[in-house]
Amino acid sequence: MATAIKQKFVYLFQEGSQDMRDLLGGKGAGVAEMTRAGMPVPPGFTITTEACREYYRGGRKFPAELWGQVEAALLSLEEQTGKRFDDEQNPLLVSVRSGAKFSMPGMMDTVLNLGLNERTLRAQSELTGDERFALDAYRRFIQMYGKIVKGIDGDRFEEALTEAKQHAGVKTDPELAPDQLRELVKAFKAIYAKETGEDFPDDPKHQLRGAIESVFASWNTPRAVAYRRLERIPDDLGTAVNVQMMVFGNMAENSGTGVAFTRNPITGESQLYGDFLLNAQGEDVVAGIRDTEPISALGQRMPEVFREFQDYAGKLEQHYRDVQDLEFTIERGKLYMLQTRSAKRTGEAAVNIAVALVEEGLISREEAVARVEPRQLEQLIHPRVDPSAKAEPIGKGVPASPGAATGEAVFDADRAEEWGQAGRAVILVRVETNPSDVHGMIAARGILTSTGGTASHAALVARGMGRPCIVGASEIVVDLKARTLSAGGAKVSEGEEITIDGTTGNVFLGKVPTIEPKPSRNFQTLLGWADGIRKLEVWANGDYPRDAEKARENGAQGIGLCRTEHMFMEEERLPIVRAMIMAETTAEREKYLAQLLPIQRGDFHGILQAMSGLPVVIRLIDPPLHEFLPNYEELVARTSELRATGREPERLAELEKVMARVESLREANPMLGLRGVRLSILYPEITRMQVRAILEAACDLKREGSDPRPEIMIPLVGTLAELQSVKAELLPVVKAVQEEKGVEVHYKFGTMIEIPRAALTAGEIASEAEFFSFGTNDLTQTTFGYSRDDAERAFIVRYLEQKILKVNPFETIDRPGVGRLMALAVKEGRASRPDLEVGICGEHGGDPDSIAFCHELGLTYVSCSPYRVPVARLAAAQAVAAERADSTK
Amino acid sequence: MATAIKQKFVYLFQEGSQDMRDLLGGKGAGVAEMTRAGMPVPPGFTITTEACREYYRGGRKFPAELWGQVEAALLSLEEQTGKRFDDEQNPLLVSVRSGAKFSMPGMMDTVLNLGLNERTLRAQSELTGDERFALDAYRRFIQMYGKIVKGIDGDRFEEALTEAKQHAGVKTDPELAPDQLRELVKAFKAIYAKETGEDFPDDPKHQLRGAIESVFASWNTPRAVAYRRLERIPDDLGTAVNVQMMVFGNMAENSGTGVAFTRNPITGESQLYGDFLLNAQGEDVVAGIRDTEPISALGQRMPEVFREFQDYAGKLEQHYRDVQDLEFTIERGKLYMLQTRSAKRTGEAAVNIAVALVEEGLISREEAVARVEPRQLEQLIHPRVDPSAKAEPIGKGVPASPGAATGEAVFDADRAEEWGQAGRAVILVRVETNPSDVHGMIAARGILTSTGGTASHAALVARGMGRPCIVGASEIVVDLKARTLSAGGAKVSEGEEITIDGTTGNVFLGKVPTIEPKPSRNFQTLLGWADGIRKLEVWANGDYPRDAEKARENGAQGIGLCRTEHMFMEEERLPIVRAMIMAETTAEREKYLAQLLPIQRGDFHGILQAMSGLPVVIRLIDPPLHEFLPNYEELVARTSELRATGREPERLAELEKVMARVESLREANPMLGLRGVRLSILYPEITRMQVRAILEAACDLKREGSDPRPEIMIPLVGTLAELQSVKAELLPVVKAVQEEKGVEVHYKFGTMIEIPRAALTAGEIASEAEFFSFGTNDLTQTTFGYSRDDAERAFIVRYLEQKILKVNPFETIDRPGVGRLMALAVKEGRASRPDLEVGICGEHGGDPDSIAFCHELGLTYVSCSPYRVPVARLAAAQAVAAERADSTK
Repeated sequence: MATAIKQKFVYLFQEGSQDMRDLLGGKGAGVAEMTRAGMPVPPGFTITTEACREYYRGGRKFPAELWGQVEAALLSLEEQTGKRFDDEQNPLLVSVRSGAKFSMPGMMDTVLNLGLNERTLRAQSELTGDERFALDAYRRFIQMYGKIVKGIDGDRFEEALTEAKQHAGVKTDPELAPDQLRELVKAFKAIYAKETGEDFPDDPKHQLRGAIESVFASWNTPRAVAYRRLERIPDDLGTAVNVQMMVFGNMAENSGTGVAFTRNPITGESQLYGDFLLNAQGEDVVAGIRDTEPISALGQRMPEVFREFQDYAGKLEQHYRDVQDLEFTIERGKLYMLQTRSAKRTGEAAVNIAVALVEEGLISREEAVARVEPRQLEQLIHPRVDPSAKAEPIGKGVPASPGAATGEAVFDADRAEEWGQAGRAVILVRVETNPSDVHGMIAARGILTSTGGTASHAALVARGMGRPCIVGASEIVVDLKARTLSAGGAKVSEGEEITIDGTTGNVFLGKVPTIEPKPSRNFQTLLGWADGIRKLEVWANGDYPRDAEKARENGAQGIGLCRTEHMFMEEERLPIVRAMIMAETTAEREKYLAQLLPIQRGDFHGILQAMSGLPVVIRLIDPPLHEFLPNYEELVARTSELRATGREPERLAELEKVMARVESLREANPMLGLRGVRLSILYPEITRMQVRAILEAACDLKREGSDPRPEIMIPLVGTLAELQSVKAELLPVVKAVQEEKGVEVHYKFGTMIEIPRAALTAGEIASEAEFFSFGTNDLTQTTFGYSRDDAERAFIVRYLEQKILKVNPFETIDRPGVGRLMALAVKEGRASRPDLEVGICGEHGGDPDSIAFCHELGLTYVSCSPYRVPVARLAAAQAVAAERADSTK
Repeated sequence: MATAIKQKFVYLFQEGSQDMRDLLGGKGAGVAEMTRAGMPVPPGFTITTEACREYYRGGRKFPAELWGQVEAALLSLEEQTGKRFDDEQNPLLVSVRSGAKFSMPGMMDTVLNLGLNERTLRAQSELTGDERFALDAYRRFIQMYGKIVKGIDGDRFEEALTEAKQHAGVKTDPELAPDQLRELVKAFKAIYAKETGEDFPDDPKHQLRGAIESVFASWNTPRAVAYRRLERIPDDLGTAVNVQMMVFGNMAENSGTGVAFTRNPITGESQLYGDFLLNAQGEDVVAGIRDTEPISALGQRMPEVFREFQDYAGKLEQHYRDVQDLEFTIERGKLYMLQTRSAKRTGEAAVNIAVALVEEGLISREEAVARVEPRQLEQLIHPRVDPSAKAEPIGKGVPASPGAATGEAVFDADRAEEWGQAGRAVILVRVETNPSDVHGMIAARGILTSTGGTASHAALVARGMGRPCIVGASEIVVDLKARTLSAGGAKVSEGEEITIDGTTGNVFLGKVPTIEPKPSRNFQTLLGWADGIRKLEVWANGDYPRDAEKARENGAQGIGLCRTEHMFMEEERLPIVRAMIMAETTAEREKYLAQLLPIQRGDFHGILQAMSGLPVVIRLIDPPLHEFLPNYEELVARTSELRATGREPERLAELEKVMARVESLREANPMLGLRGVRLSILYPEITRMQVRAILEAACDLKREGSDPRPEIMIPLVGTLAELQSVKAELLPVVKAVQEEKGVEVHYKFGTMIEIPRAALTAGEIASEAEFFSFGTNDLTQTTFGYSRDDAERAFIVRYLEQKILKVNPFETIDRPGVGRLMALAVKEGRASRPDLEVGICGEHGGDPDSIAFCHELGLTYVSCSPYRVPVARLAAAQAVAAERADSTK
C-alpha cells in the first residue's frame, strides 16, 4: 500500500481545461479555460474532486499526497505572482472557493483575504498605502473564516461590529477609523478564541489547510445533500477547491466588481445583463448590502475596461457557444476575469436563447433542442404565481401537478361541483381523494390534499386534467367536519379564497397574482425542431373530448389512454352504475348496462371525433367494482350508529343491503384483486356493452365522414388465455355492430403490460395482441411490491432520504427492475409480432428520464397528460441527441 | 389439401404395442401387448387418439381417411374371426370401448353386442342354440346404445323392463321368456324412436360409426373435463376407441367373467385379488347387481382355466414389472384376456408393492421410488375418515390441510383456546381466520372456514401446524353471532361434535370413526432409498420447538422458515407487542422491546437446540404492524355505537386512541405496504432486538455444548441498498453479542426473494446475501398481481373452470412467469456468489410438481410443512429419476 501510484490532486489553472469539469469542478474548469484563452485571470490552482472523494473514503482525512502537492502549487503561485505567503514585504493573499461539477447552493462559498495576519497586515497597509482598507480586509477575513470554516454564529461578529459603530458614533462600516478597526479585529479574535477554544491561526498555511478541509466538509451539509436530492445530482461526485490570488475591487475608486450574463437570463434578450459596484468586493454585490448599478453603467465610468469586458464576454459566449454567467473584478483600473459558467435561465429565456443561437449560426437545431430542460417548459405552459408578488406561503406540500390557481376553499366534492357549476372558482381541499371525488376535481380550479404523494389518486387525476395540485401538505391540518384548514397559524373556512402553486407546492392565503402562459413563436419553433429529430411519437392520455382537443393543440399524435371508468363516475350515471353492480342476475345487470350504452357511445363519439385520423386507445373497465359503491367504513359506522340507536329502520335495511354487496366485493388488497381483465371474464356483459358502444360510435362517425381509429385495450392481462377468452367474447360484438351498421372501421385489439407475468410471457401474449401499452404505474407497484396508494407516505420518502432509493420509481422508470421487464417484453413481443405497436401510458410517459429510456427501448410512442405533450416532444428529441452524443464518444 | 399425407388412424391389435400408449390409449396398448405375447385376446383394432384430436380440430367431424381405414380393419377382423358384420350365418358382434392414455371415469365406457339386428339376432340364436340369450343380448344392446350413444335417460328402459317383469309375473331378468323378451325389444325400440326421432339403426356399420363418434364425444363431457382438471390431465390428449370381437361370459355355466389384481391393491399383499361371476357379462361384475365370488373360487370351479389365468397374471406382472389390473372372460371354458393395466392402489399398497418388487428383483430402487405418487404418502401420515364408515357428509369445502379430526364446534379463538387447554377436543369454525386467531388454531384439533382458498390464512397456518383444515366451505353457513353452523339441513350449535376430513374436504355431523396412520417399515425403507437418490435437501418450515422435533423425526435437514410473528401473537405477549406498536417514541418502543427480548431469546433457544447441528433460517418480522392491533372495521363499528349511544365514554376514548394508531398504519393494499424489510428500516429497533435474541440464544447454546446454526433472513428485499442498510444496523449487534458472551457462532445473513425486483436484480443482491430463499407465495402474488387473500375466492376458481389457468399458481409454481424469475435469480445470484445457498420456503416447497422444478433449477433445498417432509423427500428423488428418464429419451 505504501507504493500506491501517486495521484495528481492539484492542477495549476494553466494546466487545466474545460474538458476537465469532472475533476476540477465547473468553476475550476472555467478559470482554467479562460487562463488558456489568455484572459486576465488571477493565477491560482485547483484541488480536484478526486481529492475530495479520497478525503471521504479515508474517513474525512486528507489523502497522503495532497498537502505536499498543495505546497508545491503554492510555490509555483508565489513564483508567478512574485508574492509570498506570510511575506512582510509583498504578501500573497488568496481566495478559497468550492467548485463542484454542478453549481450547488448550500456548499461553502468563499473565504477571501486568506493569508492575512499581523505581519502581512502591516505589509498590505504599506503596499496599498491604505491602513483602513487593510484592517477592514483583516476583520472581514477573521469574520468569514470564523463563520464559514469554524461554523461560528455570524451574529456574534455582527453584534461586535454594531457595538463598535455605536461606540464610534458612526453609521456605516467605512466610517470606522483604523484605530477602531484595530479594536474590532481584537474583538473578533476574542470571539474566535471563545467559540473555538483556540487562537485565530496566524500561519497562512494553517489557514489554507483549514479552509480546504472546510470546503470538503461543506459537500455533506444537510442543505447540500437536500439540494442534490432535489436536482438528482449523485452524492459521490465530491467538490473541487479553488485557491486563487486575491485581487481587490475595493482598493480605490478605479476599482470595482460585478457579475454579468452575456444575455438576459430572464427573457433571453441579447444584451449584457448584470450588476456592478464601484470600489467593492464581490461579496458586497451578492449580499445586496449596497445598491448596485446596472452593468451598462460601467461603460460610462470606465469605457476602456467595459469594452475589454464586452470583448471577453463575446469571446466566451462564442467559445462556449452558450450564454455565460461571468464574475469580474477591477483592481485599480485593471480587469480580472474570475469566473465563467453557463448561465442559469428561465424556461422562457432558455427557449429564446436556444432559438437565437441557432439563428446566429452558433449552434445546430439539435443542440438547441438539447439546451432546454424539458421540465423548464412547464413554466411556459402553466400559469404560475408571480415571483414579484410579495406573498408569504402559509404552508408547503408536494408539488404534484404544475400551475397556479386561486379559488374558494371547498371541502367536499359535491359542493365543489355545485359551486363550480354555478361559475365560482373553487379549490377542492381534502385529506385525500378517491374516485368518488372526481366530479368535484373536474369542477375545481385546483386540488390540495394533506396526505398522499406524487403518485396518489389526487396527483394522478389532477395531472391528467391539467389541474394544479398539491398533495402531502402535512403542515396543513384539514378538518373535514369543521370544513376548515389550518396552517402556519392561519385558519381558512369554507368559501374563503386561497391560492395554490402546483409548481412549487406553496399554499397562500387569499388571491395572489399569477402570470398566464403564452407559448411564443420561438417555443413553437423549438418544438418543431424537436419533432424533426425525435423518433418516438408523443400521444396523450385523455378521457374526454376536451382532453383530446387540448392534446391535439399541443401536438399529440394519438390518445394513448382513454379510461372509461371516469365516465362511470359522473354524477348522473353513478346511480345506474351502482344499480348495475347491485344487480343479482346477469339479466338485471344487462338491463342497466343497456341504459349505459347510449351514454358511453356518446362519450366515445366525442373523443373519436376529436381525434379523427389518429389512434385512440380505449381501456375497458379497470377498477374493482366496489370503488363505484359507497365507502365500506362509512357504511359500518352508519349502520352501527343506526343499530345502536334504533332510528330509521328502513334506511338501515337499505344500507345493510348495500353493505352486504360491498362486503362481497371488497378485498384485502384491491390492487391485486378483481379488476381489469378479470372483471371482463367474470362479467363479460360489461365489456360487451363497452365494445358495442365503441364500435357503434366508430361506425356512426365513419358514416359521417370522420376517420375514427379506436384501439381496444384489455387491462391487467397476465396470461395469454385471458386475452384469448376476452377476445372470443368481444370480437363477435365488433363484427355484429359492423354488420348492423353496414360499415367497416379500422380497429385494433391490444393489451396493457402492467403486471410482471405479462412482461415475462410477452412473446406469447403478442400472438393475440396487436399492441402493447406499458402501464408502468401498476408495473412499478407489482415489480417493487409497493402500493401506490400508501408507499410514498409510508416509506418511499424515508427511502429517498436514506438513499435506499435514488429516485422515486413512480416518477422515473426503475431501469434495473421495471425497465428490465419492459426491455424483455419489447424484445420478445416484437420477435413474435414484428409490427407490434408498443407504447407507454403510465405517469412515466411524461417524465424526461423515462422518455429517454422509452426511446432506447425503441417504443412506438409515449403517452402523457395533454399538458405535458410539449415536454415529452422535447424530451423525445433530446433522447435522440443524447444517443448520438453517446455513440460518438 | 387434397394431397395431404395419409395418416394411419387405425391399428389392428397385432400391429400395436405397449410403447404406443400415447396413440392407442392405455387399453389399446394393453390388448396389443397381450396379443403380441400370444395370450388369448379376442381380435380387434384400435382407432388412435390422433383420430380423436383430428375429430375435434375439424369441428367434430370424422377425419377424411378415418372411415375407410375402419372399414379396412373390419375386413381384416372378419378374416381373422371368420365372422362377418350383418352375416346371417356367422355374424360378427363387437364391443366398442373408449381408451384414453390415462383411465378416466366419466367417459363412455362400453357398448357391447354391437352388430345385432333382426337378421343377426336369428343367426346368433341358432349359433348359440339359446334364443333367450340372443334376445337378452339384443335388448341389452339397444338399451346401452340408446343410453350411451344417444344419451337417452336410462330410466326409460328400466321402467319398461320392470313393467315387462311385472307383466310376466317374474322377479329377475333371466326369468323372462323369449316371447316376453321379444316384446321388450319392441318396447325398447319404441323408446329409442320416440326419444331420438329415428328408428333404431339396423346396419352394423351405422351402429359402429355412431358408437365411435360417441366415444370421441365422451372425451368432453363435463364429468370427464372435471376429472382431468382434478388429476391434471391435459385436455388435448384425446381418447382412442377399441373395437373388439365379442366373447360371451354369459353363454353357459362353463362361461364367466371377472376382474382381478395381481396383488392386493389395498394392502399390497402378494396374491391374486378380485371378483368373478359365473355365466355373466363384464358389466354385471361392475354394476354389482349380482353378488360376485372371490377370484380364488375360480380355482374350484374351473381349475384348468384358473391355472391358465394365474400363469398369464404372473407373466403380465413380470412383463410390466408392476401390479396389473386384469379383465377376463371365459366363453364355454375358453379363457379370453380382455384388458391389462397398471393397478390403481392405495398409498399403503403402493409403498408395500414398490418395496416388494425391489425385493423380488423386478424393479430397481429408483423405479420403486418413482412408482409411489408423493401425494399418496399423505394417506399414510395423517389420520383419515374410515372409508367403511357409513357417514354422509353434511357439506364439503376445499381440502386445505389433510387429516381427519373430531371435536366440539367452537366459534371463536379465545373459547377454542380455553376449551382446548381444558383438555377438550375442539374444531375451530370461522368465516375466515386472521393472525389474531392463531392461538385458537393451535388449541384446536382442526379448522373449518366457510370462505378462503388453499392459500388463505387458515390453510397456510393449518398446514404449517399439521392441523386438518377445510376452507371455502361455501355450502356451510357460519353464524358467528348465533354461534351455529348450518349445512345440508342440519344445524350445529357450539359444543356439538363435528368431524372434518381435510383430505377430502368433507364435514360430518358427530363423531365419525377415523383411521390412525402408522408409517410402516416399508415406508421408511422407501424413503431411505429416496434419500439416496435425491439431490435436493428437504428442510421444514416451523416456528416452534415442537415443529422442529416433528421435522427432524420426518427427516428434515434444516428449518427453512422460522417465522417470528406467530411468536408475537401469543396471548401473553400480544399486550406487550401492542404497547410497543402504540409507543409514541423510539425510547418508549425500546422499553417494550426490552420486555420481548428474553421471550424471543427463549423461543430461539428452543428451536435452535432442537435443530442442533442443522441450519435454522429465521425470518425477521414481516407482517404490517396493524395486523397485531385490533381489526379496524370492528373499531369503527364499536366507536360508532358508543358515540351514538353516549355510553362508556372512557372506553370510547381508549378505543379512539387505538383506532387513530390503526388508522395511521392501515393501508389500501397491506400486501404491498409497510412490511418486511421496510419495517426494519423504519423501526430498526425491532429487528435489532430480534437479532440480539437470536445471537444471545445461539451463544448460550454454544456454551452449553449445542451446535446452533442460525441463518438470519431479511424478508421482502427489493433493492441491494435495503439489504446493505439493514445489515449495517444488524451486524454490529451480532458482533456485540458475541463479544459480550465471549463466544463465536456460525451464522449467515440472507434474504427472501419474493418480489419480482429482487429476482430481477438478484446478481446485485447476492453480493450482500449469503443465501436466498424463494418466498413463492408472495412472488406469485406480485408476479401475477393476484392477492392471495382474495383471488382464489374472487376469480381463480372461475379461471380454473374456464381453463384460463391450468393449475392454481398458489399450489404449483407457474413456470413461464414465476419460474422464469426464479431461474433468472438462481443463475445471476450464483454467478455473483458461486456458493450461494438457495432454497424455497413458500407453500410450493411441499408440492411435488414444484419440487421437480426446484430440482431442475438446482436449488439447495426445498422447505415445507414438517408433515409434508416425507412427501417432499420422495418427490425430490422422483425429480432425479424423471430427469434421467428424460435424458435417455
